Amino acid sequence: MNNTENLDFLFHPRTIAVAGVSENTNKFNAGLMFLQGLMQFGFKGQIYPMNPIGGKIMGMKIYKSVKDIPDKIDFVISAIPSRYTPQLMADAAEKGVKAIHFFTSGFSEIENVEGKHLQADIIARAKAGGIRVVGPNCLGLYCPSGGLSFNADFDKASGPVAMISQSGGNAAHCVQEGNDRGVLFSKVISMGNGADLNESDYLEYLTHDEETKIITAYIEGVREGPRFLRALKSATKSKPVIILKVGTSESGAEAAVSHTAAMAGSNQVWEGALRQAGVIRTSSIEEMIDITIAFQHMPAPKGNKIVVVGIGGGASVILADEFTNVGLSLPKLGDKLRKSLIELYPSEAGRIFKNPVDLNNFESSETFFKTMKALDQCEEADLLAIHIAFDHFGLISIKDKEFMIGAYLKLVGEIKREIKKPLAIILHSYASTQMRKLAYDAGKELTAAGFAVFPSIQRAAMALIKFISYHEERRTVARIK
Amino acid sequence: MNNTENLDFLFHPRTIAVAGVSENTNKFNAGLMFLQGLMQFGFKGQIYPMNPIGGKIMGMKIYKSVKDIPDKIDFVISAIPSRYTPQLMADAAEKGVKAIHFFTSGFSEIENVEGKHLQADIIARAKAGGIRVVGPNCLGLYCPSGGLSFNADFDKASGPVAMISQSGGNAAHCVQEGNDRGVLFSKVISMGNGADLNESDYLEYLTHDEETKIITAYIEGVREGPRFLRALKSATKSKPVIILKVGTSESGAEAAVSHTAAMAGSNQVWEGALRQAGVIRTSSIEEMIDITIAFQHMPAPKGNKIVVVGIGGGASVILADEFTNVGLSLPKLGDKLRKSLIELYPSEAGRIFKNPVDLNNFESSETFFKTMKALDQCEEADLLAIHIAFDHFGLISIKDKEFMIGAYLKLVGEIKREIKKPLAIILHSYASTQMRKLAYDAGKELTAAGFAVFPSIQRAAMALIKFISYHEERRTVARIK
Repeated sequence: MNNTENLDFLFHPRTIAVAGVSENTNKFNAGLMFLQGLMQFGFKGQIYPMNPIGGKIMGMKIYKSVKDIPDKIDFVISAIPSRYTPQLMADAAEKGVKAIHFFTSGFSEIENVEGKHLQADIIARAKAGGIRVVGPNCLGLYCPSGGLSFNADFDKASGPVAMISQSGGNAAHCVQEGNDRGVLFSKVISMGNGADLNESDYLEYLTHDEETKIITAYIEGVREGPRFLRALKSATKSKPVIILKVGTSESGAEAAVSHTAAMAGSNQVWEGALRQAGVIRTSSIEEMIDITIAFQHMPAPKGNKIVVVGIGGGASVILADEFTNVGLSLPKLGDKLRKSLIELYPSEAGRIFKNPVDLNNFESSETFFKTMKALDQCEEADLLAIHIAFDHFGLISIKDKEFMIGAYLKLVGEIKREIKKPLAIILHSYASTQMRKLAYDAGKELTAAGFAVFPSIQRAAMALIKFISYHEERRTVARIK
Repeated sequence: MNNTENLDFLFHPRTIAVAGVSENTNKFNAGLMFLQGLMQFGFKGQIYPMNPIGGKIMGMKIYKSVKDIPDKIDFVISAIPSRYTPQLMADAAEKGVKAIHFFTSGFSEIENVEGKHLQADIIARAKAGGIRVVGPNCLGLYCPSGGLSFNADFDKASGPVAMISQSGGNAAHCVQEGNDRGVLFSKVISMGNGADLNESDYLEYLTHDEETKIITAYIEGVREGPRFLRALKSATKSKPVIILKVGTSESGAEAAVSHTAAMAGSNQVWEGALRQAGVIRTSSIEEMIDITIAFQHMPAPKGNKIVVVGIGGGASVILADEFTNVGLSLPKLGDKLRKSLIELYPSEAGRIFKNPVDLNNFESSETFFKTMKALDQCEEADLLAIHIAFDHFGLISIKDKEFMIGAYLKLVGEIKREIKKPLAIILHSYASTQMRKLAYDAGKELTAAGFAVFPSIQRAAMALIKFISYHEERRTVARIK
């Protein structure tokens, strides 16, 4: 495991003490939320609530100090005001606590210089006491295999995707967006100011973490630039690394400083550094998940040529433009392939046998299946995409739509088993109440069947070009070597 | 009304005959769908079904020919196979029909040269018989004030937005996307091949149509380039014109030819021509609706400076970057304004009083209202935006979230009455089931209250920069004059 620090202990504590749990359950308090969240999520170890007054909550004794707890404490979550954190740190050091997560904010991210002093103080105490610190100013850890979560609604199943986030909100959004679309996580770290453990520590750890196959990160700024770049280069050797680097505009950089005290750096420098390190750069949480989905569900393509088949003539034209604009290659279909497709259908009227192929309607599931088999075996395509424009069924009754789409989806299950080429499914253009539901349900069903599903032409285009470019670069590098 | 042809008669027929209605209601047939669609939508005039065999449907007699119908016929919808259309045209001319919409396809859009001959034939017959043709190869007309629709689900209420579309599917998607987000339409024209009435005819008509305040169009290619550009220049003098011009990539151009026989033209030429004509160019149906919403709900801004307030620190950083990247101007807040905002809140911890302002949470509705009033009166902002990142409430229970967002929404209703500056609301980052529903319901409520609501930071950024640039250009032109 090189010289990388093994942070497994952070994600698998046996005991947790939560500081700042009020007895009053009627009023919002963050400590209580962490406590309840862990219990509801199903943390298997012991949890101990704390506050300086003591009392009882949900049948549990509230301890006045971590020192009073009659058990070894692996991990402390602090939701107390910042002025009390030095005392907590002193007590924790005495107790032999291994790690503290500070939800507490009011450190170096605030303008007042006292915040910076306070942060320096607690970090010095942590180092002296042998305690590792997550944060401060963050939501902390989500690790299904360790029973940890800062939101009881997150999926309890583990998966291959890790996330390092300098924003708790963006981490929460990323997990929700991912869970909703079939992405499961190994470890998600809301790291806040990163005063002790920083983005480089987590990245180095995740590079060697066997649970993690894809690394994603939301980065506002880094503390140790050269080390972070080295860590990135090392990480990309074994796993795709997808990064949302923000704070690159003047306003964004200012917001980042106030948010997590991060120095954002110039966009040009970052653009070059990330490209050199082989990182996939993204511009939103949604896109980060889109790209992750491609990696999770699609095999590596052999080249960059994509053939698209779908329903919606106007949507085909938009798709052709959008795909071409981002740099995807839509090859012409050869005469042999065209003829074999045309022969499958009773009439050409309303259909377009070019790329994209516009079927206008699903003639029959058998015909559609034959179409997909022909495309899978053709020389033209390295990848395939199916797109369906839901609201384009303007003329057809809801019942017919449901029937057509339902039949199609069952068929797509068969396609999953038979089609060898990487296949993306784009379910788009749904705004009417019925189509919205139909598209959403279809997306869920296809996602569960293991397909890469995208909600719009634009989003599919961006995810696919980044997925394809990644593999193209790898092929180039392999050839040079 | 200049020399423009008044096409009102197309949109307000008193009688409609639908050709190609089969007696068999169990099997899909397009004629039946049009017939049922019109009846369900509530067309007030007489409808007559037709097919060459005759029979009965839903208690109505099916006529074998338009000539047999014992009534004057204003409008015919043709859903018959293309080979029978010359006979239909001959009969319609004899009958004195004013207009025919051909849903029928298989004309100049197919590769076979016979399709082009057939189209030339029916258009020659139409001219000789004094009949105007909508299409062929299209879904036809949606005009709530005339009781016309090709989809019974479309909103029955009229509104200020017109659309010319060279794709029926995209027209349907546009209406659904619009209806779902509070956009109502005056006239939507799915025009297909535009063999008789083309995009220029419709554009000239809509320029003078009093029902229409905003013109949108999905254009694959135009038949009379110079005339269309003249029509655009004339239209933009009185109304915002928002155009999705596609077929600008090689694959897209090929798809366009096969779709509606349109010659797409080079992207460079179009880009220049559209800019010169003062047209707002868009790249998707969703964006077209986003921009329309800005025009429908926001007054003209006095400048280009926008101040943003919201919830979500990480989302603020993403927003600052995204807004800056598209060219929006986020001014720094002056000391006076900053102090007045800070004074409203009990603590700065977790809050950022820069632009974007991150409130972290809604302290109270009164405080938030005072915040908005302060921003409305400040010198820094020409426009305001509120953003809320739903899934960022990672720690708070669903009940608290609902309470907080509910209280906030009620407040926003008050803001509507008091705030004078253009205000955009961005409800974004919702993927969990609860937050998705909450955001969707909130969007509906705010839309109904007359706010411009956007579903993501990216989409708001694009709509706002195009809305602001439009008004900046107008101011520049006004100054020069």
